[in-house]
Amino acid sequence: MKRLLSLLAATATLACALPASAQFAKPEDAIKYRKASFTVMGAHWARLAGMAQGRIPYDAKAAADNAAVLDVAHKLPWAAFGPDTQTGDTKAKPEIWKDAAKFKEAQDKMLAEVPKVVAAAKTGKAEDLKAAFTTAAPVCKNCHDNFRQ
Amino acid sequence: MKRLLSLLAATATLACALPASAQFAKPEDAIKYRKASFTVMGAHWARLAGMAQGRIPYDAKAAADNAAVLDVAHKLPWAAFGPDTQTGDTKAKPEIWKDAAKFKEAQDKMLAEVPKVVAAAKTGKAEDLKAAFTTAAPVCKNCHDNFRQ
Repeated sequence: MKRLLSLLAATATLACALPASAQFAKPEDAIKYRKASFTVMGAHWARLAGMAQGRIPYDAKAAADNAAVLDVAHKLPWAAFGPDTQTGDTKAKPEIWKDAAKFKEAQDKMLAEVPKVVAAAKTGKAEDLKAAFTTAAPVCKNCHDNFRQ
Repeated sequence: MKRLLSLLAATATLACALPASAQFAKPEDAIKYRKASFTVMGAHWARLAGMAQGRIPYDAKAAADNAAVLDVAHKLPWAAFGPDTQTGDTKAKPEIWKDAAKFKEAQDKMLAEVPKVVAAAKTGKAEDLKAAFTTAAPVCKNCHDNFRQ
């Protein structure tokens, strides 16, 4: 009985220490979630990009609002690339799992660049947004080119 | 020329004052976005619900982290229910547009309840989360029952 209890305790500890990917009951849930978070991120990114590129008139409040969503959204997809999510309804390339270190590096670059765009979008100055966007855009493109079909 | 200029100015003002739904280039973009934001919201809500209902062990940090995402995500879908988004790849019921006042009321209730769950999830007390969840859950259900196929 004591053994069983300590086994249960160990299992519970393990369950709490599981990586974020384990938060999804099924691989397809993780795939759906990461696609959804990219869609949300992309929509708000696109609005900032439009202002940065002069396709949409610069609007300081809209920039700050979109940046606030981007700030949260850009952190979301990464927990959903578990090893069991390589196949299914996804455009993720096998390279994500084959070259995990390179994917992690691309991810870290993105996680470093986006907060700079977020901060720039909150200064109320169009030129700040434009400058941060110009630096960050190739980071997005790099990852899409290498890791998305 | 003066007339043209003032017409242009009026158009520009109108463009800035357009509802958020006009941020989507195509109706299908709005539908995809609102579904994505519900998916993100639902995933984080589900983790809080699991803790509130005792299906997942309570973890104060996880509760606060999920609440921070929920806090942003729960505001997102509503701008994407424009009048041109009634048909397509959507489970949204026609009642959303037929009885817009009732939908708005359901929306407002949700926008009032979720921040209470967010706040409760950040206190570090399981019983606070449970209490707020118990009040908020029927608000979610009400909207799903009436407005989602």
